[in-house]
Amino acid sequence: MRTISENRCFGGVQGVYAHASEATGCEMTFGLFLPEEAEDMAVPVLWYLSGLTCTHENAMTKAGAQAWAAEHGIALVFPDTSPRGADVADDEADDLGQGAGFYVDATEAPWAPHYRMWSYIADELPRIVTANFAVDEERQSITGHSMGGHGALTLAMRLPGRFRSVSAFAPIANPTQSDWGRKQLAAYLGTESEAWAAHDASLLMAAQGFEGEVLIDQGASDQFLDLLRPEALAGAMAARRQPGTFRMQPGYDHSYYFVQSFIPDHIAFHAEALWA
Amino acid sequence: MRTISENRCFGGVQGVYAHASEATGCEMTFGLFLPEEAEDMAVPVLWYLSGLTCTHENAMTKAGAQAWAAEHGIALVFPDTSPRGADVADDEADDLGQGAGFYVDATEAPWAPHYRMWSYIADELPRIVTANFAVDEERQSITGHSMGGHGALTLAMRLPGRFRSVSAFAPIANPTQSDWGRKQLAAYLGTESEAWAAHDASLLMAAQGFEGEVLIDQGASDQFLDLLRPEALAGAMAARRQPGTFRMQPGYDHSYYFVQSFIPDHIAFHAEALWA
Repeated sequence: MRTISENRCFGGVQGVYAHASEATGCEMTFGLFLPEEAEDMAVPVLWYLSGLTCTHENAMTKAGAQAWAAEHGIALVFPDTSPRGADVADDEADDLGQGAGFYVDATEAPWAPHYRMWSYIADELPRIVTANFAVDEERQSITGHSMGGHGALTLAMRLPGRFRSVSAFAPIANPTQSDWGRKQLAAYLGTESEAWAAHDASLLMAAQGFEGEVLIDQGASDQFLDLLRPEALAGAMAARRQPGTFRMQPGYDHSYYFVQSFIPDHIAFHAEALWA
Repeated sequence: MRTISENRCFGGVQGVYAHASEATGCEMTFGLFLPEEAEDMAVPVLWYLSGLTCTHENAMTKAGAQAWAAEHGIALVFPDTSPRGADVADDEADDLGQGAGFYVDATEAPWAPHYRMWSYIADELPRIVTANFAVDEERQSITGHSMGGHGALTLAMRLPGRFRSVSAFAPIANPTQSDWGRKQLAAYLGTESEAWAAHDASLLMAAQGFEGEVLIDQGASDQFLDLLRPEALAGAMAARRQPGTFRMQPGYDHSYYFVQSFIPDHIAFHAEALWA
């Protein structure tokens, strides 16, 4: 692992690190914010998964999350959204290929060799982070925006016991029924199958739910509402009696201005679960 | 004036607007955050001047300022740092020409026709902002980062009565004695003269000071300490008995991680003066 940068931030350190990844077969870069408390103890950690076109950097610079993570003594991990590099398959569209890993392990050509973001986020990166930094693997929660909200919800539900709480900002909530999903699942996983259902937050919510609390924020003026399908997730949460909150926020769109407006609430929500 | 974008943010609106500028003779773009309170009343306004290479966008997306401005019911203006366009003189260096206006009115060729950022920030943009938005021209304060800290301090001291408070993050504090200053003042204003002294915060502090409170934050691990010359400003503030605070912050560098770490303090500082 090599250090790309480290900047003092709210009394802690905002670092960027790169490492050779076994899961994706390429070099991967991630951001990690450690609060001041990490100098003395292993701190709880909140995973932040980003959306289409993002790298590790977007949320790290634009979500305004460090202020609140510092206040609550929580680390933040900002992974990249796909494998990267000249040898890695890509597509001209910005919703497929590099920047659009969709948090699945691809089984289809040409994606299968590198597009293993599920394994990377579920297995490899947590090992690297807990082995190298003062973060407490027993105290993890997860959030994300858009495609990253999809990743956060599917990982949280399919890895019971891993995360104490899950939240999402404008998640791609029902990808098996959306053009943000059907195209990518077909490309990465092949013909529609049970493998698709395992990557659909609304179907997972209906089938099993999440053992902790869930918090979802969705902007009512989001320009991608038709693609996100929040009604599927809200309906599934209510039908299951899932403990948690779904909030429709009037006037807010899909941007980081939306994310930064509600990240104080999300980090406070996760802090309560992480420090319980 | 035309609207480039408006995003709901912390209950208010983060807008970006463009207009033809008489001062600079080109189209200028600025960001404006209006808190929710601006729906019902003219709110106080804090000007944020940015540093070398920045546009109106950098601080707007990376300083994390809107959270605190919303909390205190204060508007934020994010001007650009220079005139722009194919017809506007430029230089290959990133510390001269476009992105590096230095908040002066140039008198020398080839800069004089467009590089009039002093007049733009002191006169034209305030008129545009107060005429078009619910901001209170009687309640203004100013801050900035690096070159923008230089701009904030020089404007505040040379426009008595305009700003209730002034602060700066790692300002270019003594440009007449620094390579961040001598090169630009020579290019824009010509041979060293009294015109230079009018754009040096440390000299202005020694000569006249500021009638309100001053807050300066400087990172002790700033990679540009030799160019910023904070010791000149700190010495001048102390010698003058200037009401205010100069803080040397251990471990912090020159980045927006430094700015975002202390912007809560700065906005609270200005809010106290603006709402008094």
